[in-house]
Amino acid sequence: MTVPQTLYQELLSRVSKAALLGSCGAVLSWDRETYMPVGGNEHRANQLSLLAGVGHQWSTDPRIGELLDQLADSELADAPDADSTVNIREIRRTYDRSKKLPQRLVEELSRVTALAQHHWAESRGTGDFDSFAPWLSQIIDLKKEEAVAVGFSDDGEPYDALLDEYEPGVSSADIASVFAALRQEVVPLLDAIRGAERQPDTSLLARPYPVAQQAELGRRAAEAIGFDFQRGRLDVTTHPFCSGFGPGDCRLTTRYDESFFPSAFFGTLHESGHGMYEQGLPADAYGTPMGSSVSLGIHESQSRLWENLVGRSRSFWEHFYPPAQRAFPDALGNTSLDDFHFAINAVNPSFIRVEADEVTYNLHIMLRFDLERDLISGKLKPLDVPEAWNARFTSDFGITPTTHAEGCLQDVHWSAGLLGYFPTYALGNMYAAQFFAAAEEQIGDLQRLFAVGDFAPLLEWLRQNIHQHGQRFSANRLVEVVTGTPLSNRPLIEQLSSRFRPLYGV
Amino acid sequence: MTVPQTLYQELLSRVSKAALLGSCGAVLSWDRETYMPVGGNEHRANQLSLLAGVGHQWSTDPRIGELLDQLADSELADAPDADSTVNIREIRRTYDRSKKLPQRLVEELSRVTALAQHHWAESRGTGDFDSFAPWLSQIIDLKKEEAVAVGFSDDGEPYDALLDEYEPGVSSADIASVFAALRQEVVPLLDAIRGAERQPDTSLLARPYPVAQQAELGRRAAEAIGFDFQRGRLDVTTHPFCSGFGPGDCRLTTRYDESFFPSAFFGTLHESGHGMYEQGLPADAYGTPMGSSVSLGIHESQSRLWENLVGRSRSFWEHFYPPAQRAFPDALGNTSLDDFHFAINAVNPSFIRVEADEVTYNLHIMLRFDLERDLISGKLKPLDVPEAWNARFTSDFGITPTTHAEGCLQDVHWSAGLLGYFPTYALGNMYAAQFFAAAEEQIGDLQRLFAVGDFAPLLEWLRQNIHQHGQRFSANRLVEVVTGTPLSNRPLIEQLSSRFRPLYGV
Repeated sequence: MTVPQTLYQELLSRVSKAALLGSCGAVLSWDRETYMPVGGNEHRANQLSLLAGVGHQWSTDPRIGELLDQLADSELADAPDADSTVNIREIRRTYDRSKKLPQRLVEELSRVTALAQHHWAESRGTGDFDSFAPWLSQIIDLKKEEAVAVGFSDDGEPYDALLDEYEPGVSSADIASVFAALRQEVVPLLDAIRGAERQPDTSLLARPYPVAQQAELGRRAAEAIGFDFQRGRLDVTTHPFCSGFGPGDCRLTTRYDESFFPSAFFGTLHESGHGMYEQGLPADAYGTPMGSSVSLGIHESQSRLWENLVGRSRSFWEHFYPPAQRAFPDALGNTSLDDFHFAINAVNPSFIRVEADEVTYNLHIMLRFDLERDLISGKLKPLDVPEAWNARFTSDFGITPTTHAEGCLQDVHWSAGLLGYFPTYALGNMYAAQFFAAAEEQIGDLQRLFAVGDFAPLLEWLRQNIHQHGQRFSANRLVEVVTGTPLSNRPLIEQLSSRFRPLYGV
Repeated sequence: MTVPQTLYQELLSRVSKAALLGSCGAVLSWDRETYMPVGGNEHRANQLSLLAGVGHQWSTDPRIGELLDQLADSELADAPDADSTVNIREIRRTYDRSKKLPQRLVEELSRVTALAQHHWAESRGTGDFDSFAPWLSQIIDLKKEEAVAVGFSDDGEPYDALLDEYEPGVSSADIASVFAALRQEVVPLLDAIRGAERQPDTSLLARPYPVAQQAELGRRAAEAIGFDFQRGRLDVTTHPFCSGFGPGDCRLTTRYDESFFPSAFFGTLHESGHGMYEQGLPADAYGTPMGSSVSLGIHESQSRLWENLVGRSRSFWEHFYPPAQRAFPDALGNTSLDDFHFAINAVNPSFIRVEADEVTYNLHIMLRFDLERDLISGKLKPLDVPEAWNARFTSDFGITPTTHAEGCLQDVHWSAGLLGYFPTYALGNMYAAQFFAAAEEQIGDLQRLFAVGDFAPLLEWLRQNIHQHGQRFSANRLVEVVTGTPLSNRPLIEQLSSRFRPLYGV
């Protein structure tokens, strides 16, 4: 090997070792949500804090900085889009970011959020915000400290530093302007739908759907779209998530509501979308940028694409409605495919983000984005969150949460320290629509394939165009490379219009 | 703080940090056996090897040696049986042992055994020893290397070094002589029982016992004897085990056989016994010797005590037989308590160690002890294990395994690198009998308490006399301190005689 190659191998070995350690923490976090007995909470927090601390030490080892410096002028760093150049570029980016975080802050964030999630779950159960408030307050303080440590541009704001962790290169101002434009299109569509004469009968989704059959149908659908259960599992948690531990092991979770069909089914498709992205990353590049997902927005595009653009399409149900009727003869035996399809595409302001329809969903995100920005800038005090939440919710949705469990306590994110994360959900919706439009153009009639249960061409297209590239392209560039045009809200708006206007006859 | 106190605190902090990291590995190992998808095997091996390597680095950090040297002459190391003296003594012992193991060997053992367990499970499934042989061979080589690295006394043998990991201070010669004496007593008892006219009807245990009811009854029994499910769980695995992750989190596993009642039920009691020991260790001493179990033999004494001396007693079933009959009306509705009690105490040479009766059980251990000793000395080649196993089994039990799954492939231990571990099971039986006799003498009529479902006084006695002491006493000394006499095989022989002779009328 040449000298640069030797240095490059050492660099990869160091970062992938840190990633391997991080993946141990992922197993422990997954277990905490799925199977850990309540008594294990404190010890688990100590374990996670230890792993986070050591991981941070390793990924900020000055030797990584030396290697990066030595490689900066080598040809390995000078071949745009080549694996080595991508790895060196992205390792530099995360290294520079991590270096700014004091070890103490990393360990404390890990420990506090591990404990806070437990308290959040309790508060959510009782609806008592006040007992969660001190935890939120502590977390906001730590995240403010993180934002200051990471830094942001002169014309930016602290929240930018947090956003950057999840969607590199995107600023609060960018998001604000994208959201404003989206809102301008969504609100009139929503008004038209709410004024429509034709309305779906959503009560049919609230009939009894036995959990065992839901689990079976959900698993069958996940398998059909391409999630590989030899290399993953599906379990039950309060808050659904997907965690890719590494090659060959990706964990999904969902939650079952016996009297509401969509939660678990579309949740399972959603997490399967995340999981298939994880399963499609190059295994031999594990632990390096070339084996990692691009950003949370791109990750979310994969989940939303399968959940909504595939899973709520009429053609998908042409294939899946007969088995669904067999699984739930009491609930669906006498219901037509059209009525069912209309019901699962019902648009209706509602309290819970993860169960929101596609039209109102992004309004849920905009609310969180604005609140988070104010929390980090200090304009909003943690104790005042419930009031601010309810006021904004009422003005955006025309309804007011009656409990904090269906209001500001509904999401796990804040207790987990994930501030700056929510906006990636809305970005994911936009990426998803744009990718899907490109896929449809390139593959041909996807709906015809879905109708016969053939999802392989779409998955293969995503693997080739997105998954296999790891972090070769930034999110923005990936969109351009794959679709030929920069990110735009047009595909999403067109998707929503072309699917919901005919359904509602507006 | 005085200087020695400062040094002592640093010492404790270093070893408990290594223990905390080790407990992360325990979570990953547990997950591998319970929920990990098959595709995760390779990645999990890498994770475990990384953690083992780092843990070894930490626990052999020269700074620990310095601290131990500096503390050696302080008063903290000079108060027999005081916490600090115990901690310094035991940290010194493990440090000296760990120091002898090369980092490479530790990582390789971890990686190879993680992979080998997977191959063992496959070979056990098919009964094909040959495909497992290369793994066994590799593990034996690594364990031989370990034995040489650790060393043994001039009149000893390499196997001593392996034994010492699990039962500190016990040699192969000790075990051989204890086993010879035990065999002399057990064989005539077994012969008498096999010649008895009265024999139990064991077919009643092989009626259909629905798994859901087995799980419910097992959990209820585990709770009744004192296992705390707020601080633990019970899951299903191929090979039952107990893993204490740390304070507040102890995992048990069992396996259900719909047409054989004893497997899961007594397995659950057995693992609960281990679990209650873990739950009884002082939480505030976590990660230090004072918060750790004494030896595997003492650990096994706790499991065998609850499984056999409590769980197979007639008085236990005076309390539990009515709910068992309600749980299994088809199987037990018309069966008398006496017949049931005789059946669960049936003595019969059989192939599977974990399902062996108490009389033949120790013969299973003696076979493994002799084979392991020969494997490590090189007298027996791994490829020749099946032949040696079957020959010895036939001579000891009068029956020959028809498949390797019921022969030399039945146990997970070798694939997990646990050589020198089996003898602790037989020691555990002896400790258990001796502890139980002392408890009965000190508490009074235990049988009367069991008959009304009151197991708390026994558990409390074990907590006070054994659990709370951590490693204050060595195994040998603990037996003396608690029972007033050194370890002896008399209590076990008396237990077996007094329980089985009347049952069989011999």
